[in-house]
Amino acid sequence: MDQERIAELAAFSRVGVVGLGLIGGSIGLDLRALGVSVQGLVHRASTAERALERGLVDAVSCDPACLEGCDLVVLALPLEALLQPQEALLTALPPEAVVTDVGSVKGAVLDVWRDLHPRFVASHPMAGTAESGVESGCSGLFRGRPWVGTPEVDTDAKALDRVRALACSLGAHWISADPLIHDQAVALISHLPVMVSAALLRVLGEERDPRVRDLARQLASSGFADTTRVGGGNPALGTAMASRNTTALLKALAAYRWSLEQLEEAILNGHWAQLEQELEKTRALRPSFLEPPSDAAMRQD
Amino acid sequence: MDQERIAELAAFSRVGVVGLGLIGGSIGLDLRALGVSVQGLVHRASTAERALERGLVDAVSCDPACLEGCDLVVLALPLEALLQPQEALLTALPPEAVVTDVGSVKGAVLDVWRDLHPRFVASHPMAGTAESGVESGCSGLFRGRPWVGTPEVDTDAKALDRVRALACSLGAHWISADPLIHDQAVALISHLPVMVSAALLRVLGEERDPRVRDLARQLASSGFADTTRVGGGNPALGTAMASRNTTALLKALAAYRWSLEQLEEAILNGHWAQLEQELEKTRALRPSFLEPPSDAAMRQD
Repeated sequence: MDQERIAELAAFSRVGVVGLGLIGGSIGLDLRALGVSVQGLVHRASTAERALERGLVDAVSCDPACLEGCDLVVLALPLEALLQPQEALLTALPPEAVVTDVGSVKGAVLDVWRDLHPRFVASHPMAGTAESGVESGCSGLFRGRPWVGTPEVDTDAKALDRVRALACSLGAHWISADPLIHDQAVALISHLPVMVSAALLRVLGEERDPRVRDLARQLASSGFADTTRVGGGNPALGTAMASRNTTALLKALAAYRWSLEQLEEAILNGHWAQLEQELEKTRALRPSFLEPPSDAAMRQD
Repeated sequence: MDQERIAELAAFSRVGVVGLGLIGGSIGLDLRALGVSVQGLVHRASTAERALERGLVDAVSCDPACLEGCDLVVLALPLEALLQPQEALLTALPPEAVVTDVGSVKGAVLDVWRDLHPRFVASHPMAGTAESGVESGCSGLFRGRPWVGTPEVDTDAKALDRVRALACSLGAHWISADPLIHDQAVALISHLPVMVSAALLRVLGEERDPRVRDLARQLASSGFADTTRVGGGNPALGTAMASRNTTALLKALAAYRWSLEQLEEAILNGHWAQLEQELEKTRALRPSFLEPPSDAAMRQD
C-alpha cells in the first residue's frame, strides 16, 4: 500500500477510541499527531480528565453517545470487557462507521462481534503489554510492529482496507491472517511462554528444602530473570488469554509437554550426543524468530 | 571478613590460573590489578601470546611445570576438562598450594578432585557464561556476584579461608554451601531453565502447519525472546551441565512437569479463578529471586 493510498484511506474525519490504556492512548496520540480528530470514551471521569491533560484525545466523555459522527471506532478495551460489551456502547456505535478491536485473541472476539456490527474488522496490534492505564499511552508504539488483521469471508472489504490504512498510517506493518491461525500462533509465542515461565517460578515456590530455596534465591541471575519474566506478569491478562484461547493454548501445552519429555528422556538415558544435537537445533532456530520482519512479511502490507 | 584480613589472606605471592577464558582471564586481570603475580597455563601457544598481549597474566606457558612456586592455583577449565585432568597437570600442581576450581557443578567435581589434591577447595563463582575464550576476560566480573564455596568435612580449613579471601578480594560475596545443595539450587535456577526454554523453541521447530509457524515467526517479540534466551545458548555447556548434574536436573524436571501439569489442569477444567491465583503467586514470588543479595546473604561473607 503506497503512502498516498494510506493517507487517503486513513483520512478519517473523526476516530472514536474506546478505552485509553496503553493501546488506546497510543493510538490517540499518534492519530492526533497526524491531524486526525480523536474522540475518547472511558469509564471514569478521572481517566477522562487525565487523558485530556496528556493530549491523548481531542475530546473525551464517559457517555457512549459521544461516538456519534465517528467514521472509525477502535475498541481498545481489555479482552473481557470487549467480549461482554455494554448495551449502551452497542447502541452508540454508528452503523456506517468502521469498527475494529485490538484484542490479542481473535476467534473469541469474532464469535461475539461478527454479528454485533456490520462493519466490524477484527485486528490485533502487537505492542507491549507490560504497561497499562491512562499514563501508559505513548507515541510511536506501533512503528515497525506487526498489526494483524483477521478478516472472514463476510468481512466488509472496504472496512478492512480502512483498518489496514489505520495500522499503516501508525507505522505498523500489516499482516492478514486467518483468525484461528492467528490464535494458534499467539498461543505458541505468547500464551504458552507465560505458562512455561510461570511453571518454572512455581517449582521454586514449591521447593521444600529451605537450604535449596534460599541458595537458589541468592544465585538466581539474568538467565533465571529472563526465563521467568512473562510468568511473573499480569495475572488477569494471563488468565484472560488462557480462558479465551483455551483450545489453541491446550494444543500448544500438549506439544510442549512432548517436547520437554524428549529432552528429559535424552537426559534420563544419558544420550548426551542427542541432547547436544537438540540444543544445537534450538540455538540455530532462535534467531529466525527474533530477526526484524522479513521482506516477505513486509510485502503483505 | 574484614578488609585487612582479606588482604592478609589474599596476599598470594604467585597465583596460577589454568585456562584463560572468561573466568580465568577475568581472575588474572583483577589479581594483577591488586598487585598479585599471575602465572597462566594454557593449551595453545596462540592463546598464550594473546593472553600476554591483553595483560591477563604476568607470565604464561603451555607447560604445566610453570605452576611451580604458585601458592594458589585456580583451575578455570571447562567442566569436561576439569573432570578429566591431564596427568601432567596433576604432577605439576605444587602439593602445598591451595587449589580451587570454578566449575558450575560441585558434586561431580569433588568426586574427581577430593582425592587428587590435599588442599583442593571446590568453588563456583557465579558470573556470565555467554562469552568465552581469551578475548572475553574482563575487569570486575565478580564484583557483587555470588561466589559459592562447597567445603566438605575433610576440606583443609586454611585452604578454604584463602579461597574465600580470593573471592572477597575480587569483590564477590562468598557463600558457603553443601555441594549437593549447591547442585540442586543451580539445577533449579540455571540448568532447568535451559531445558524449559529449549523445549519451547522445539515446539516452534516442530510445528507442522507452515501458516502457524510463519505467523509465529513474524509475531514473536520480547516475551518470546526472553523466555527462549537460555534455551538458544551454548549446546556444549547445556549438555555438560545436564550430564554432570543429572540427578539434580532430573529431580528439577520432575518437579517442573508437576508444576506445569497443575496449570494445564486448571486451564483444561476452566478453573480460571485458580489459574489467576496461581499467576498472582508467581508474580509475587519472582522479585524475591531477583533482588540484590540480602543482608543475610552478605553476612555469610
